[in-house]
Amino acid sequence: MLEALREEVCEQNLELPLAGLVVGSGGNVSGRDPETGLVVIKPSGVKFAKLTPDKLVVVDLDGAIVEGDLKPSVDTGIHLYIYKRRPDVFGITHTHSPYATSFAARGERIPAVLTPITHILGRDVPCAPYATPGEVETGEAVVTAAAGGLAALVQAHGVFTLGKSASEATSIALYLEEAAKTTHLAMLRGPVEEMPQEEIDRCYAWFRRHYGQSGTKAVNS
Amino acid sequence: MLEALREEVCEQNLELPLAGLVVGSGGNVSGRDPETGLVVIKPSGVKFAKLTPDKLVVVDLDGAIVEGDLKPSVDTGIHLYIYKRRPDVFGITHTHSPYATSFAARGERIPAVLTPITHILGRDVPCAPYATPGEVETGEAVVTAAAGGLAALVQAHGVFTLGKSASEATSIALYLEEAAKTTHLAMLRGPVEEMPQEEIDRCYAWFRRHYGQSGTKAVNS
Amino acid sequence: MLEALREEVCEQNLELPLAGLVVGSGGNVSGRDPETGLVVIKPSGVKFAKLTPDKLVVVDLDGAIVEGDLKPSVDTGIHLYIYKRRPDVFGITHTHSPYATSFAARGERIPAVLTPITHILGRDVPCAPYATPGEVETGEAVVTAAAGGLAALVQAHGVFTLGKSASEATSIALYLEEAAKTTHLAMLRGPVEEMPQEEIDRCYAWFRRHYGQSGTKAVNS
Amino acid sequence: MLEALREEVCEQNLELPLAGLVVGSGGNVSGRDPETGLVVIKPSGVKFAKLTPDKLVVVDLDGAIVEGDLKPSVDTGIHLYIYKRRPDVFGITHTHSPYATSFAARGERIPAVLTPITHILGRDVPCAPYATPGEVETGEAVVTAAAGGLAALVQAHGVFTLGKSASEATSIALYLEEAAKTTHLAMLRGPVEEMPQEEIDRCYAWFRRHYGQSGTKAVNS
Repeated sequence: MLEALREEVCEQNLELPLAGLVVGSGGNVSGRDPETGLVVIKPSGVKFAKLTPDKLVVVDLDGAIVEGDLKPSVDTGIHLYIYKRRPDVFGITHTHSPYATSFAARGERIPAVLTPITHILGRDVPCAPYATPGEVETGEAVVTAAAGGLAALVQAHGVFTLGKSASEATSIALYLEEAAKTTHLAMLRGPVEEMPQEEIDRCYAWFRRHYGQSGTKAVNS
Repeated sequence: MLEALREEVCEQNLELPLAGLVVGSGGNVSGRDPETGLVVIKPSGVKFAKLTPDKLVVVDLDGAIVEGDLKPSVDTGIHLYIYKRRPDVFGITHTHSPYATSFAARGERIPAVLTPITHILGRDVPCAPYATPGEVETGEAVVTAAAGGLAALVQAHGVFTLGKSASEATSIALYLEEAAKTTHLAMLRGPVEEMPQEEIDRCYAWFRRHYGQSGTKAVNS
Repeated sequence: MLEALREEVCEQNLELPLAGLVVGSGGNVSGRDPETGLVVIKPSGVKFAKLTPDKLVVVDLDGAIVEGDLKPSVDTGIHLYIYKRRPDVFGITHTHSPYATSFAARGERIPAVLTPITHILGRDVPCAPYATPGEVETGEAVVTAAAGGLAALVQAHGVFTLGKSASEATSIALYLEEAAKTTHLAMLRGPVEEMPQEEIDRCYAWFRRHYGQSGTKAVNS
Repeated sequence: MLEALREEVCEQNLELPLAGLVVGSGGNVSGRDPETGLVVIKPSGVKFAKLTPDKLVVVDLDGAIVEGDLKPSVDTGIHLYIYKRRPDVFGITHTHSPYATSFAARGERIPAVLTPITHILGRDVPCAPYATPGEVETGEAVVTAAAGGLAALVQAHGVFTLGKSASEATSIALYLEEAAKTTHLAMLRGPVEEMPQEEIDRCYAWFRRHYGQSGTKAVNS
């Protein structure tokens, strides 16, 4: 069941090690099916190198396994907590990507100093205080810190990005790590100046209007 | 039309993720055809992994689409602005490569401390002040800061390199990021000393005279 | 002999350059056969790119070559010293991975500030004082510093990780380097706060109970 | 002519971008034939991605082209200067690898704080003062700074490593960059302590006696 979603979620999980966002079996991507509300997620402790679409696990929003021979990710409860509170979210990506997580290590937010990331997030990247691992606490930390936005760090842990699909969530994770790296490098040489929120808002709206292929000539049309 | 230029511009766009200068669909390369004056550029929001020569867009200097089923890069107006003011430029590469952009994040120029980059640029890498995204402002910022040279940073945004071809512009982007990284690392350990401009000039002239295969025995001749 | 173990140890050695933990022929992985007590280890000075299972060397706990045409790793005595004192260890991975070794360069431990590594180690990463290269001294340094745990740095030298198998030891080496990098980056921007040991203990127990596929539905069952 | 040497020198040149030591066409490897004294070197300005053994250039010690359709590397004069003064050297590798070159950017030597590099070099990595690009000056700077050893930095420029073959010179370049990175990272967090020269000497002798496959059972014997 949910073959197309399985394919997409598998492909996005495999994107994580390719992009250098994860090592071993750390990190995971899930996607929610808009029709059934079911969630496809990475199995627990399976190395990315061994991941195939049929190994993914399908769960309902209460965590019951609907299809799959493997135990789902140990972070499944976090994903489900977020999906329940955020009806706009259909994909979640979780990594410990080093630059972004270095901010989480100190409980720091990532300031909004670069247009490539403010175009996408429309704000800085907030950091939730430490939450003991487990479903409710970390899920709540992400939802509260994200405050309706698309990304949050969790102190001493890592990064969660939220998208309209698994692909979008993973794409945000990529840009967020790039911005975290660039911002970190700049901060080592001296203070950085945050963009004014009104300029961020203007750019964010401009980018939404103009970026990508939607609302324009279709591919191969 | 412009098949050879499409091939070259596509290949140079694909060089960007291979060299670690971009992630996702961020960044773009264009090339200008010396005969027709038309510009071939990356389509907007298309991931590098999915880019093929036929997906590139051909535009004229006023931005009208001459050939292509996709919307051109959101940065097309910037490229065209530069081409109009710089008749010597036939290729432009734009990235958010992390080390160079970390200088842009603080509105800093990259000082001229390493011969591998001063051989190519003949000077430091200037940084334009913040320009609100859009055609005129950012294009103007690049042209003014570059001051007839081959590269400029734009504050809070990224890197633009200008070449006699798309290949040369991308090659400069590679060396510039390498120099930005090395210079950044050195600056973290203590002050760096800039090369005197007269020595830069001497090296730049020496390098132009001696480097590469032009004016010498031809390949396979 | 020991074909399966040869395969595993070879594969784990090859993981090291793929993961960026080693260069050239530096670093090595060994595995101990639970039945015979024999150890399979990388030959000395052979580049990872040229390594195949048949080139590995089988030695007994006293260092006598049982099978193999090549001289075993110059670090074999260290591996054997550890195996003799640690009956729970069946795999050892040794690298000079840069971020972790940068702590070793200063004789510093890696503080426990990130859950992804404390889930696995249950503590910080200790650093043994400098030990002159050779069997007894460095082996003793690792065993003493590890204090029954799964990892230790040796000052001015590198990283040793200990596992229930060669695969587990290498997996720990991967996560340890990721944590070392993230912790290093955080420390450059300001002080980091160590997790309380009681919280580390709680997380470690939780992770052992829930992570991976053991004790659950089997793969393909 | 010199087919085997061409193969080796080409392979070692290709190792440089694979190992992340160079970008574009920057950097070069040469090898000297022990019988004829002729030198095989990379052609000028040819991208590593396009390099094949037949494109390499054979020159004599005075720089006359003996075989080859392309102009040799712009650094050929430096290589020849070194070969003339160092009869023990049969391979030279030159890179601008970022961590090592960041020391060169400040005219700093790389202190001897890590056994993996002191095992190979037997000392720190010296840095020659700035030398204007060209044959005599930079060659002299390398020979003087290396002082009979296997590596030297040149201020504001890059790294030169010298070996008994092109393969050995490139291998040293790899380990040197790894050590430069690790040492740099350590220095950012606080002072590093250099190893006493007598301990370096002891380790260097121990490593020469024990490392690798020479003087032992031959492969496949």
